[in-house]
Amino acid sequence: MASPDAENGCWNKFRALPHNIWNKVVEKANKAKKMGKDDPKKIIHSLKVGLAITLVSLFFYFKPTYDGFGVSAMWAVLTVIVVFEYSVGATLGRGLNRMLATLVGSALGFGAHWLATHSGKTGEPILIAIFVFIFAGIVTFIRFLPEMKARYDYGLLILMLTFCLISVSGYRDDEVIHMAHKRVTTIIIGSITSVVICILICPVWIGEDLHKLVAGNLEKLGNFLEGFGSECFRTSEGGQANNANKSFLQGYKSILSSKSSEETMANLARWEPCHGRFRFRHPWKQYLKIGTLARICAYKVEALNCHLHSETQTPMEMRIKIQDMCTKISSESGKALKELATTVKTMTKSSLVETHIANSKQAAEALKSLLKTGLWEDALILEIIPAATVASLLIDIITCTEKIAESVQELALLAHFKSPNTHQPQHLLHRGTIQPVSDGSNHVVVIDMQGSE
Amino acid sequence: MASPDAENGCWNKFRALPHNIWNKVVEKANKAKKMGKDDPKKIIHSLKVGLAITLVSLFFYFKPTYDGFGVSAMWAVLTVIVVFEYSVGATLGRGLNRMLATLVGSALGFGAHWLATHSGKTGEPILIAIFVFIFAGIVTFIRFLPEMKARYDYGLLILMLTFCLISVSGYRDDEVIHMAHKRVTTIIIGSITSVVICILICPVWIGEDLHKLVAGNLEKLGNFLEGFGSECFRTSEGGQANNANKSFLQGYKSILSSKSSEETMANLARWEPCHGRFRFRHPWKQYLKIGTLARICAYKVEALNCHLHSETQTPMEMRIKIQDMCTKISSESGKALKELATTVKTMTKSSLVETHIANSKQAAEALKSLLKTGLWEDALILEIIPAATVASLLIDIITCTEKIAESVQELALLAHFKSPNTHQPQHLLHRGTIQPVSDGSNHVVVIDMQGSE
Repeated sequence: MASPDAENGCWNKFRALPHNIWNKVVEKANKAKKMGKDDPKKIIHSLKVGLAITLVSLFFYFKPTYDGFGVSAMWAVLTVIVVFEYSVGATLGRGLNRMLATLVGSALGFGAHWLATHSGKTGEPILIAIFVFIFAGIVTFIRFLPEMKARYDYGLLILMLTFCLISVSGYRDDEVIHMAHKRVTTIIIGSITSVVICILICPVWIGEDLHKLVAGNLEKLGNFLEGFGSECFRTSEGGQANNANKSFLQGYKSILSSKSSEETMANLARWEPCHGRFRFRHPWKQYLKIGTLARICAYKVEALNCHLHSETQTPMEMRIKIQDMCTKISSESGKALKELATTVKTMTKSSLVETHIANSKQAAEALKSLLKTGLWEDALILEIIPAATVASLLIDIITCTEKIAESVQELALLAHFKSPNTHQPQHLLHRGTIQPVSDGSNHVVVIDMQGSE
Repeated sequence: MASPDAENGCWNKFRALPHNIWNKVVEKANKAKKMGKDDPKKIIHSLKVGLAITLVSLFFYFKPTYDGFGVSAMWAVLTVIVVFEYSVGATLGRGLNRMLATLVGSALGFGAHWLATHSGKTGEPILIAIFVFIFAGIVTFIRFLPEMKARYDYGLLILMLTFCLISVSGYRDDEVIHMAHKRVTTIIIGSITSVVICILICPVWIGEDLHKLVAGNLEKLGNFLEGFGSECFRTSEGGQANNANKSFLQGYKSILSSKSSEETMANLARWEPCHGRFRFRHPWKQYLKIGTLARICAYKVEALNCHLHSETQTPMEMRIKIQDMCTKISSESGKALKELATTVKTMTKSSLVETHIANSKQAAEALKSLLKTGLWEDALILEIIPAATVASLLIDIITCTEKIAESVQELALLAHFKSPNTHQPQHLLHRGTIQPVSDGSNHVVVIDMQGSE
């Protein structure tokens, strides 16, 4: 019935297609431009990959032995492309996995090939099929094991690949050895090129990123809590204050779903050698513990945040009664968390954390005793609920902060953090690491500086 | 000083090495055995991979043209190994990405090769190096774009790979075309074999998994809330009740960190063709919306759960006053969520959700008016706080449930869920889908049945 209309619509769509595609391309290009500006490291990585591939390509291009060049060059170029990752940890992990798996896979594949070829013309294909089937099945199953998946997934894939390639190839024994040898050498050349370029030119250490991420998460929680007190009790006083500069109230949201990225980063960081302030066996797992505790704290902060935006508000007079104590708990917990963030970031122990926690506990006791007095008897319970909930959440947050502090202390022990008393190099002084923490703004600057390095 | 001791320790460690390795192997084997028992689909997948690789290997093994067989077979076997994934969506996504990228990459690579070879002996390596560098850099950068990374990451990798392989190869023009042609054909054979075997033998549809995951998450929240009321108010009454059968109180924990896996699943599900009850363009993104709302609800449930285990408890007499209302809100919200889970699971609209939500709202109003009365004047505010917090959280959860209900309704509209009035096939009746929802246990059985299918 509506077929002419539909046809017309189709035709119009078809005519608008080039225009639409162009618009999409422009949009994507703008996004890419913005991404490059925001994070120049990504541009540098792209150039590094280009350089590594070009180097390997030219090396094989100019290699005098033309014979057999096709396959060899292919493996080396292929290796660079699949091994070169953004961070050193990922590149090293893939490179080592690929090299080791190729070696082991070649040996096993050669064994299978030898057994098959020495069992007669009819037996050969049957034996090879059985070997390949069993080997591929077992390795695929092993890849499901969580510990294997986390660190050796790529290696198991390459193990299976190399085994199949070597054992299936219908060559003679000496040819197979030659092929395996070429494959192993080219893959080693490709992997080492990738790793060397990845480490030498502006390396991105994923361990350092994890370190900054975890410290940053504590900082975000601290920022929220420091600002929460005044925010919670000011909103109705001065009406809706300016919403422009309140990003600190939303910063913690990213922590809620950071679990999987933290785990990936910790897995990759374990591949990295000693770099900067980090040893080879830096306790990366401890960062996951701190991250988990920070997430539990973030769940409570999320509950607090709901109360900032909820419509049922406790009347002013009641809130004024608890305002001081709540603000004190919140800001002292916030300061403790920010101090912990600085501790992690600068890898220098701090004695101020305990003071802040003690302060917030003191305020909590004061709040509890205030709540025990009969001041509230004329109040309707429904009106008290929001204020009471906030108070109860804040008291919970002190416990969270204490647990995080313990866990950071454990990290300090495991990773041999510096003592604040030891002499510090001059440049660290400028960063405000051993200055008193009373002015919180200083720390934010430290983060920003380190973040854009 | 302690060197003999240390040496002895080293020697002992070395002697214990085989034993330790053996223990580790046994431990891993036991884990693998358990995993296989828990999820036989993983064993089936392993067998499928083995079969696909064996088939492709034998196909090329028996191919009459021995000439050039090495490289071709290699590409096909390699393709099966890297393309064959656990779910149909992932396999299809990788297969299509690989085929398309190989085609485009071959064409571009041939163009670059032609330009380079026609610019003289000196110009050739320089031009090729420039082409490879620019192309690799640009493609690597594009891979950072979030939308491209989500769906075309593998395709971009293969595009770069093919372009480099074809353009760098030092062959003559006709040889390059021959090589590109062989590469494209073998990759198509490998990809299609993988996809066909993946779909034909016990396929794992990731869309269906996402569907079940989201429904299961709603169910878990529902289970918690249904049980919460009695749990919260019984604990101190009958002392510590049996902790054995309380897994339903912990089930929701997995929802807190399910964001990234849901996103991955939705991305992969978009590759899947029409299957079972799902059309090709099933609204997978709507599942993410429901998932996000379920997560917000889970944060509140987490806060509720803390109160189950907190030490400060409201005295009995006070709790008894609000017990009925709180239990009612909790269990009615729970029933609504479980009904929503059933709605999603069976893809059949339900009118019971609104009834349950209305019931819980009614209870909330009753609770509010109870809290407004002066019944509480003799109570200390500190003692009221836990009960008040629970009440306030439960009231918040009603809002969450409503939002989830809206979002499920949207899904029902987008995915054309069945109406409950239409005639249902007999086998669905047995699953309890259109029976009244009063007996919650029935639904748990439904999940278990579907989970192990």
